[in-house]
Amino acid sequence: MDTNIKHIGVFTSGGDSPGMNAALYAISKAAEINNIRLSGIRRGYEGLIDGDFVKLKPNEMQKIVHRGGTVLKTARSSRFLTLEGRKLALNNLLKNKIDALIAIGGDGTFKGLLVFSELCELPFVGIPGTIDNDLAGTDFTLGFDSAVNTAIDNIDKIRDTAESHNRIFLIEVMGRDCGYIAINAGLGVGADAILIPESGQDFVRLLDKIKNYESEDAFIVVVAEGDELGAEITASKIKELNPEVDLRITKLGHVQRGGNPSALDRMLGIRLGAASVTALMNGERNVMAGILDNQLKFTPFDSVVKQHQVNEELYELLKTLNT
Amino acid sequence: MDTNIKHIGVFTSGGDSPGMNAALYAISKAAEINNIRLSGIRRGYEGLIDGDFVKLKPNEMQKIVHRGGTVLKTARSSRFLTLEGRKLALNNLLKNKIDALIAIGGDGTFKGLLVFSELCELPFVGIPGTIDNDLAGTDFTLGFDSAVNTAIDNIDKIRDTAESHNRIFLIEVMGRDCGYIAINAGLGVGADAILIPESGQDFVRLLDKIKNYESEDAFIVVVAEGDELGAEITASKIKELNPEVDLRITKLGHVQRGGNPSALDRMLGIRLGAASVTALMNGERNVMAGILDNQLKFTPFDSVVKQHQVNEELYELLKTLNT
Amino acid sequence: MDTNIKHIGVFTSGGDSPGMNAALYAISKAAEINNIRLSGIRRGYEGLIDGDFVKLKPNEMQKIVHRGGTVLKTARSSRFLTLEGRKLALNNLLKNKIDALIAIGGDGTFKGLLVFSELCELPFVGIPGTIDNDLAGTDFTLGFDSAVNTAIDNIDKIRDTAESHNRIFLIEVMGRDCGYIAINAGLGVGADAILIPESGQDFVRLLDKIKNYESEDAFIVVVAEGDELGAEITASKIKELNPEVDLRITKLGHVQRGGNPSALDRMLGIRLGAASVTALMNGERNVMAGILDNQLKFTPFDSVVKQHQVNEELYELLKTLNT
Amino acid sequence: MDTNIKHIGVFTSGGDSPGMNAALYAISKAAEINNIRLSGIRRGYEGLIDGDFVKLKPNEMQKIVHRGGTVLKTARSSRFLTLEGRKLALNNLLKNKIDALIAIGGDGTFKGLLVFSELCELPFVGIPGTIDNDLAGTDFTLGFDSAVNTAIDNIDKIRDTAESHNRIFLIEVMGRDCGYIAINAGLGVGADAILIPESGQDFVRLLDKIKNYESEDAFIVVVAEGDELGAEITASKIKELNPEVDLRITKLGHVQRGGNPSALDRMLGIRLGAASVTALMNGERNVMAGILDNQLKFTPFDSVVKQHQVNEELYELLKTLNT
Repeated sequence: MDTNIKHIGVFTSGGDSPGMNAALYAISKAAEINNIRLSGIRRGYEGLIDGDFVKLKPNEMQKIVHRGGTVLKTARSSRFLTLEGRKLALNNLLKNKIDALIAIGGDGTFKGLLVFSELCELPFVGIPGTIDNDLAGTDFTLGFDSAVNTAIDNIDKIRDTAESHNRIFLIEVMGRDCGYIAINAGLGVGADAILIPESGQDFVRLLDKIKNYESEDAFIVVVAEGDELGAEITASKIKELNPEVDLRITKLGHVQRGGNPSALDRMLGIRLGAASVTALMNGERNVMAGILDNQLKFTPFDSVVKQHQVNEELYELLKTLNT
Repeated sequence: MDTNIKHIGVFTSGGDSPGMNAALYAISKAAEINNIRLSGIRRGYEGLIDGDFVKLKPNEMQKIVHRGGTVLKTARSSRFLTLEGRKLALNNLLKNKIDALIAIGGDGTFKGLLVFSELCELPFVGIPGTIDNDLAGTDFTLGFDSAVNTAIDNIDKIRDTAESHNRIFLIEVMGRDCGYIAINAGLGVGADAILIPESGQDFVRLLDKIKNYESEDAFIVVVAEGDELGAEITASKIKELNPEVDLRITKLGHVQRGGNPSALDRMLGIRLGAASVTALMNGERNVMAGILDNQLKFTPFDSVVKQHQVNEELYELLKTLNT
Repeated sequence: MDTNIKHIGVFTSGGDSPGMNAALYAISKAAEINNIRLSGIRRGYEGLIDGDFVKLKPNEMQKIVHRGGTVLKTARSSRFLTLEGRKLALNNLLKNKIDALIAIGGDGTFKGLLVFSELCELPFVGIPGTIDNDLAGTDFTLGFDSAVNTAIDNIDKIRDTAESHNRIFLIEVMGRDCGYIAINAGLGVGADAILIPESGQDFVRLLDKIKNYESEDAFIVVVAEGDELGAEITASKIKELNPEVDLRITKLGHVQRGGNPSALDRMLGIRLGAASVTALMNGERNVMAGILDNQLKFTPFDSVVKQHQVNEELYELLKTLNT
Repeated sequence: MDTNIKHIGVFTSGGDSPGMNAALYAISKAAEINNIRLSGIRRGYEGLIDGDFVKLKPNEMQKIVHRGGTVLKTARSSRFLTLEGRKLALNNLLKNKIDALIAIGGDGTFKGLLVFSELCELPFVGIPGTIDNDLAGTDFTLGFDSAVNTAIDNIDKIRDTAESHNRIFLIEVMGRDCGYIAINAGLGVGADAILIPESGQDFVRLLDKIKNYESEDAFIVVVAEGDELGAEITASKIKELNPEVDLRITKLGHVQRGGNPSALDRMLGIRLGAASVTALMNGERNVMAGILDNQLKFTPFDSVVKQHQVNEELYELLKTLNT
């Protein structure tokens, strides 16, 4: 155990995702039980630069385990991209005698820490917080499961009206360059087709099915926002093929980022939150805590590359289910 | 009691809305208990023209009281606008010895019945089924309460991410020419501004507030789809005023039409469904069943004009809450 | 307008119910816009006696419109039943120069105000806050619609497992002496039987149906907690009649008191909250604000008797649907 | 590939759990794409004995991926425990020329298959379907994640009312002998104490905390139904210690078995459903398909012992969070 850790700073950065508050709760409890002081840093790197530090009381955090968003707020910071910004940040850490940092965020957040480590010798631990599930080193990122659940709940609703009208629906879900939300949501709602950025074949398959579409039932297409065509172009290509079709587009949008975290995301946040404190006490530095193959695992920041590959088993599933 | 009613036909028409299945359930039970035969007509006027009739068994309907959409499916029919189409419809009614019709739909559905009544002497009763709540003669239309609940659940989620980022969100809700969904959803989520088609003042008030907006908190704007500006133009006008603002648009879309009906819509469907059978037995014809000032009330089709007026009390509320 | 009202105190009392925070939000906004100071009193009459007063800031209240429970907390107070307790309460009001009181609660809360009015000349306005919907003077009490929605969501889930096993389920819902939640929830889920305190015939009807029950389907019974038999005794009587039946009991319990308020309860809270401030300014005193037949209506406290009567139309519905 | 498999029978057995329909959907699709005939067997072993076989059409199954329960219905069968019953079952399989069986159920279901394999040489593959998550050979059983999500949604609601009243709540969740639902739900809601069958220390820790409980806040205890004390005895022991406490008990009950499956359970059902067909084609027999350490894995039935052990990391979490 590294007894040098007496004061940890924690912040959330990048896009918010459900489960961040659960992680903050576990961090606050783990710090308390180990007699470590904890400071919350508001608005990600922006608050680090501005010295916007607050207390995170465990008994108050306990009441918001179930809330979406992040009480520390989050932001993207252009100032931290500058050396001057990072120097201000370092100064605030030294002034407040902070010994270590925990950052909850995505790819960009960890890259920021790597750059910062050239200037600042404090140990950093990261927690993967993004709905996109696009990071190597963890089976799930914080917020992904909640986002998929929000997507399927909403697509289930759309199915009601699609079936009542025998309509085609193109539903665009989030996930940036990554098709994980689309695949999981699409399979989970029994979609007729799923369009993801990782595959070029799915659009051809879609057109084949649409050709045979007799308009005697609903036809649900789930489209990843990162898909090269996207919902609008896909819609116009379908219309070209068959001008008669009754087709609607819905983009689920930012609802996928909010809402109470799912059970899995609460546990994931709690497990990774507690583990990140332990990791710092054990002398870990510049690693991301993750759950890989169902085990706690720490991956160096520079190995947490973006992972676009939807795995082989999922591709096979798409073929089997003809989606 | 009109003992001449021995066989009722029922159909859903226009846009589907949550609660239609609950109404069909009550109609099937009320018919059964009064020894009246019941035929379901699929796909609205289209099925009437095509003779697409099915049985609605009470014990099967009982299991789908809670489901969104309509088991009878629905459609818009251009053929019914022609005399030829209506003659085919009449023929099917006569051939099947149907004595009376119940139609669940909106404004257009009832207008269709009025025209049809020039040709067909059968008694018609209507049930207001539309999420827009834009009909005179009833406090609530079937599906409105469910649509508002879906809207607020989703906007609550957006609030999580809006507050985490101190963002402005413009959220467009349904309702066609009518601001009821927007007002109810907007007030229900504590929106900072609500833009509805019925008012010209709300955009000015919005700009006033945005001017003072310091980006230290979320700012939620709920926009009715029928608003003369709409979400995109409003967004661009805000950007003109203040190019720095962090602003997002979400259009909730068709999710508002689906999902399990709310408690209120289930009861409304059941009350109006049972009442429509009784009304036919009592000799009513060409009226819409509604709940007006909390009482069952039948309004002649030609008085069921579209009602755009959001009432005075609601306007006062908007002012009081400064939205 | 009564310009004498410069400082209003508000509290929530008795059982909490979803929508109370929405009412507090509207009260805080209406007070602000009318330049009236507002003090929140914590834990109902207990806080009045203890002088436990807090500020309610409109911009903070705006963020919790959608939250269940009450930020002011609530309690039952035995001390307020004593003259000594009430004198302490009066003293706190005078000391804080409070000109008027708004109380959100049920029957007991308003009775307390009536007794208090013998001692204290300040004007009081009440808002009906109870999930039981057991008060005259309003179509809906605050929280009732949310409670029914929670009940039907949960019973819908139970239907899944009941149908999978062809089981009988007795599901007990809240409502104290009043069957409103049971009737609304029972009809809303397509229950096979509904047992309410107001009726003695429903149990006989239930036994008739059970006799013919062939265990080839689910059989859902919704029982009001105030029913004279209750779920357990009903279950044992069914077992007596037919020892072979596969029967389960679920008491939904306190989940019905919590959760985000429904759309209707948010609007109801907001309308009644704003109206209660206006009422005080207009010189109203010792009245409960309600929505009666869809109109704002003020009823003197002594006319707000408990109302057990489920109305005639609902009874007819129960017979028609054979529940 | 085993080209001998031309006709598969599938059934659900034991307690139903959300996700079973998703598994049936994937099985029907995988069978179709491989030109294998598929028969659904209703009511578990009971239907096997009675020859209650039905078709499962892929395009109909696709529409119910999102529904709780099981369309094949389920049952416990005492007749299958007899040799006579099993002979009838075998006869039905031979008569229908079924080449292989897929069974979705729990421990008891697989034991049944093992016994049956003494009589019947057909290959069997099992899918773990139980909300209890009490089986070795898979990280998650089908329905567990949904059950935990239903539990946390309901406990979140209870928290609203608990905090409004500063009450102690004992909430009993399902899981039979296994504390997994309790731990996951308890941590997920920020419970103050969690009582599980696997630990004897948790009650002592609870009493310690209650001693210091000042009734200035909610106090949430999640109790596993298999805990040796259970909610009632725990409640009476707390009352002994401190007769003044304001304490309520809620048993969530069968709501945890129903409802639309969560995203994870839909994917799990789909993955295991598709894998079970492939496994049969690959010549696997008498194995359960599972996801172990995030990989598809087949475990022989006789190794699928019940697994009561909550793992070390979770115990450490309980201590860290002082629950």
